[in-house]
Amino acid sequence: MHPLDEAIAMQPVAPGVYAANTHPGYANAVGPFGGITAAQLLNAALLHDERLGEPVSQTVHFAAPIADGPFRIEARPVRTNRSTQHWLINALQGDKLVAMATAVFAIRRQTWSGTDAKFPDAPSPESVAAMEWDKRPEFTHRYDLRYIDDSLPKTFTEPERDNGASQLWVRDVPERPLDFPALASICDVFFPRVMIRRQRWLPIGTVTLTSYFHADSHMLGRVGNRHLLGVARAQAYRDGFFDQSAEVWSPEGELLATSHQLVYFKG
Amino acid sequence: MHPLDEAIAMQPVAPGVYAANTHPGYANAVGPFGGITAAQLLNAALLHDERLGEPVSQTVHFAAPIADGPFRIEARPVRTNRSTQHWLINALQGDKLVAMATAVFAIRRQTWSGTDAKFPDAPSPESVAAMEWDKRPEFTHRYDLRYIDDSLPKTFTEPERDNGASQLWVRDVPERPLDFPALASICDVFFPRVMIRRQRWLPIGTVTLTSYFHADSHMLGRVGNRHLLGVARAQAYRDGFFDQSAEVWSPEGELLATSHQLVYFKG
Repeated sequence: MHPLDEAIAMQPVAPGVYAANTHPGYANAVGPFGGITAAQLLNAALLHDERLGEPVSQTVHFAAPIADGPFRIEARPVRTNRSTQHWLINALQGDKLVAMATAVFAIRRQTWSGTDAKFPDAPSPESVAAMEWDKRPEFTHRYDLRYIDDSLPKTFTEPERDNGASQLWVRDVPERPLDFPALASICDVFFPRVMIRRQRWLPIGTVTLTSYFHADSHMLGRVGNRHLLGVARAQAYRDGFFDQSAEVWSPEGELLATSHQLVYFKG
Repeated sequence: MHPLDEAIAMQPVAPGVYAANTHPGYANAVGPFGGITAAQLLNAALLHDERLGEPVSQTVHFAAPIADGPFRIEARPVRTNRSTQHWLINALQGDKLVAMATAVFAIRRQTWSGTDAKFPDAPSPESVAAMEWDKRPEFTHRYDLRYIDDSLPKTFTEPERDNGASQLWVRDVPERPLDFPALASICDVFFPRVMIRRQRWLPIGTVTLTSYFHADSHMLGRVGNRHLLGVARAQAYRDGFFDQSAEVWSPEGELLATSHQLVYFKG
């Protein structure tokens, strides 16, 4: 069984209520990698009997550190319309909320389509070296991360850069066909921009993450287990918080997801 | 009393529960302008006795059309940490959820700060004509909207453009000192990108809006009642949904907010 499938597995204990667990393979420096939490909360809605269509957006609040071990997920469609459905999904340990997500699911209809974002002219994944870094948190070993530029800090003593942008190829390790939980998780795989901009190690923590899924399951199926191209940048860093935005592209240049997050930082 | 202050006024009826009303001055084609709903939901948290610090993020779900008239807002801090607080804020008509918001409030600490986004080189607000358009929905008259480029459709029969980007100067009408509710509302003031890209009138509706507030109340106070520079663009339009992202700048080039939304469209 793939570690991602182990991580997102959950036992229904009542309608919309699931027993879930943190997964040691997706551990971050403190608590689980935020992407896997996003995947777990999304999966609770995907597994729900009352689900309508497929996810088009998800917002996750990382309310508190999740302790290693079991937690409870409560997923509830709070409003169901003809073609859209709004969700509230809570994760609790004991009686304490540790994470909260909202989501929109929808039945898509074929329409005129287009893309304003530009697919970058990037070298092939095979021509780019995989990330090597001594102090990698465990979850990074669940991803093949191939940073295209030299933006990633190596010694954390390089001179400050004039922006926090970067590009990488990424896929699950081991390889796994792309689906919505995998995509939701990859939307959070981007290195914290403040550390790229400043080339310094700083304590950080994402407080909230919003992802828009432009792909449907057919498009994800066509991507299969190939590398995705990720582009990430920051907008503003100010007084303890910065935002970063990311694009996730198929190898053919289809924009699968755009994602935004607000991150706490110190120093 | 300023129409925005009338619109965000609400009567506490129980702890965290408020009686609110739609405001005819902020009506959109169907139901209220989404920005005013965002401002109302944010204000419910701002007025709450248990509020910690100031807003740093807000996500709004436009779950269903809000009928003109009264509605109930229920605001609840779902997790309060030492310096951050997570909120769930529901708007109901009868027993039906019509809108839902989540938010993060925080006590900011002074840190290293910087901006990666680029402040555009724009002509002064005085040198740009205010938007004129016959079929403007009522809420647009509550804003001074000065589109800098010629991107806005005039006859809805112009040739398709190669992207949906635009820039404008904007402030409240009448002038009003900037605060968080006003900023939350302005984050939704940007014309739907699909209509700029295609130069056609299309039925649209925002399903979810996420705004990150990079400014604190002191910075908003320094902006006062002057024009803000807005920059908006789309990333992808596909099968009934597109996303658009915006930056809201002070006249001096401080990035006050970044905002993202997913919009339903037809045709």
